[in-house]
Amino acid sequence: MAHVSAGVEYALHCLVYLVDAQDLGQPSSARDLAELQEVSTDFVAKLFTKLQKAGIVAAREGIGGGFVLARPASDITALDVVEAIDGHKALFECKGIRAQCALFGARPPAWAVDGVCSIHAVMLEAEQRTREALASHTLASIAGRVAAKAPKDHADRVKDWLAARTPRRGRRAQAS
Amino acid sequence: MAHVSAGVEYALHCLVYLVDAQDLGQPSSARDLAELQEVSTDFVAKLFTKLQKAGIVAAREGIGGGFVLARPASDITALDVVEAIDGHKALFECKGIRAQCALFGARPPAWAVDGVCSIHAVMLEAEQRTREALASHTLASIAGRVAAKAPKDHADRVKDWLAARTPRRGRRAQAS
Repeated sequence: MAHVSAGVEYALHCLVYLVDAQDLGQPSSARDLAELQEVSTDFVAKLFTKLQKAGIVAAREGIGGGFVLARPASDITALDVVEAIDGHKALFECKGIRAQCALFGARPPAWAVDGVCSIHAVMLEAEQRTREALASHTLASIAGRVAAKAPKDHADRVKDWLAARTPRRGRRAQAS
Repeated sequence: MAHVSAGVEYALHCLVYLVDAQDLGQPSSARDLAELQEVSTDFVAKLFTKLQKAGIVAAREGIGGGFVLARPASDITALDVVEAIDGHKALFECKGIRAQCALFGARPPAWAVDGVCSIHAVMLEAEQRTREALASHTLASIAGRVAAKAPKDHADRVKDWLAARTPRRGRRAQAS
């Protein structure tokens, strides 16, 4: 299994759409974002629960409610999203086997267990480099690169699609 | 589950002992290295099969046989060991959901799927930083840091312990 889950991929794609949707001045529902990407609504709803808990998105209640970014896209890093969805997963879990040496007998000497194991230290450094790389990209920078690849009218077409859903959501709510 | 397995931790500890054991001019068996660290012999034997396949250790056959480093400790990186034991595990497996957009219909346009996804690119960069960090540490540098923490006579005591096992292995083989 990959270290960074598929949930992070889905969440980042949804959030990139939310960056564009900010111009609309109306929130997007987890359902709309799931249907826009033809992925499971339940799964996306669960991701948004985690993103909301982490303070990345904020919910707007009521008819036509949904989610908006809780802070500027330039203040939300890829690391924030990875940790919101996957939690803080260690790259490596030290089992502390340095304490086990036939020469030590039942009690390892203090020098053998004090501080961080030299092998664990290598893994912690590798993990830190990963975190720095993820922290160096924001939703704003990612959305900018995604937009640069698309035709100029694509963002507007996405916004039109999302905008067209909001009154429908209203109609659905009124009809129920 | 952590991205880097416990097998990597066990393998690196064994290899650090092998760095010291080089002075002995005699190989160490997987069994001796397992018993020195009070861990499963079967597990360590499996790790050494992988390390041998990756060209990190070489087997010496016969009575008193075992393993030696296949190349200088300064030419074996932590990344080499991680890949020998865990294989090349991606930090992130892109599901390619950028191709799924309700606006695209059945066939996504080329611009939406050409090149690397901007989100995947962030993860690839993070993975590359991890690999660079792991590649910057060698068995020689790790063994040096491990030795710096231990009393001066510890390496000699380990060597004596390993050296004392070799004739016993010979005796065991002759008795069988």
